[in-house]
Amino acid sequence: MSQTVSGRVRMTPDGRREQLLELGVRLLSTRSLDDLTIEMLAEEAGVSRGLLYHYFANLKDFRRAVVRKAADDLIRVTAPVQHGEPLERLARSLDAYVSYVEENFEGYTSLVRGAAGGNEDLREIYEEARAALTDRIFEEAESDRVLDALSLPDTPVVRLMVRGWSSMCEEVVISWVRDPHDVSREELLTLLAAALPGVLPAG
Amino acid sequence: MSQTVSGRVRMTPDGRREQLLELGVRLLSTRSLDDLTIEMLAEEAGVSRGLLYHYFANLKDFRRAVVRKAADDLIRVTAPVQHGEPLERLARSLDAYVSYVEENFEGYTSLVRGAAGGNEDLREIYEEARAALTDRIFEEAESDRVLDALSLPDTPVVRLMVRGWSSMCEEVVISWVRDPHDVSREELLTLLAAALPGVLPAG
Repeated sequence: MSQTVSGRVRMTPDGRREQLLELGVRLLSTRSLDDLTIEMLAEEAGVSRGLLYHYFANLKDFRRAVVRKAADDLIRVTAPVQHGEPLERLARSLDAYVSYVEENFEGYTSLVRGAAGGNEDLREIYEEARAALTDRIFEEAESDRVLDALSLPDTPVVRLMVRGWSSMCEEVVISWVRDPHDVSREELLTLLAAALPGVLPAG
Repeated sequence: MSQTVSGRVRMTPDGRREQLLELGVRLLSTRSLDDLTIEMLAEEAGVSRGLLYHYFANLKDFRRAVVRKAADDLIRVTAPVQHGEPLERLARSLDAYVSYVEENFEGYTSLVRGAAGGNEDLREIYEEARAALTDRIFEEAESDRVLDALSLPDTPVVRLMVRGWSSMCEEVVISWVRDPHDVSREELLTLLAAALPGVLPAG
């Protein structure tokens, strides 16, 4: 017999856990990770804390699972589109990244902060998400690769600068979402995409 | 009667406090901020903990003062040289920055980590140091300014991208000091200096 989240929908255990995680990610959009508690989830989901402990061993496990899901969402929504010129496709991934940061600002910045601050669980998930985003630049089929569009080989110096470009995008997008000043979204996307060839050694 | 640090040199109280801070900064080069204790300072300086509490109210105050000094050192050693072309002077500041990170790796990365992780004291000092480094790009006399050398106005979008470039430099330099792979120091400096015009809108 399946117990239901919010009492309305019958679901499998995996489905219910997933639904709770989605709620956790939504809660994270307006709260930092440190503010996310089992009590809050129980209240928002309309279920008992006891039920939640069936799915998550403890608060740390719950937060880790929520961050894992948030990172997977980020990787998924920014997946490159299949068609188009490499730099155009890069700009579209950046567009999706900006939307993600806009829609999940508190949760995303608390992940960045937690990872940078030395929380090992968060750092691991964060590094994995960032690696997934930047590795696409290297790992796509050769005919589609941004690198090949720029006539660049895959060398340590290129990897190092792509890592730097990724840091720059993170800082610029977070600053811009916090306060866009007079900078339009289109201007932002154009600058970030153009910055990749701009920071790489000449091809 | 002046008591002496290490018993060898007679100094003013300000001089002694400064000497203790210098020792603190040296200790930070191989230790993270969290590992820096009053006991460690007392042992290294060869003085009593009681004397140290004459200069620093508590451990937090001591760590804050050491970070303050480390940030001031960073700002000082990377001060632009007075003569030369703007981009050449930028490259020389970057060179000093790389040396600073090499020589103070543990302390510097623990400052970055602490600031990013939400320690408000550290964040304030860190932001101030970073602002001092990037503001130079905007605030030097017009004839010397990198911006003018690039024919760029001081606009919100330029400020946003300079902030991003600064994040990129931090990430790239920390990664490179941790593991240079096959990238030479000269190659690194050339790339970082060239990346500033590379990320800015066309002049």
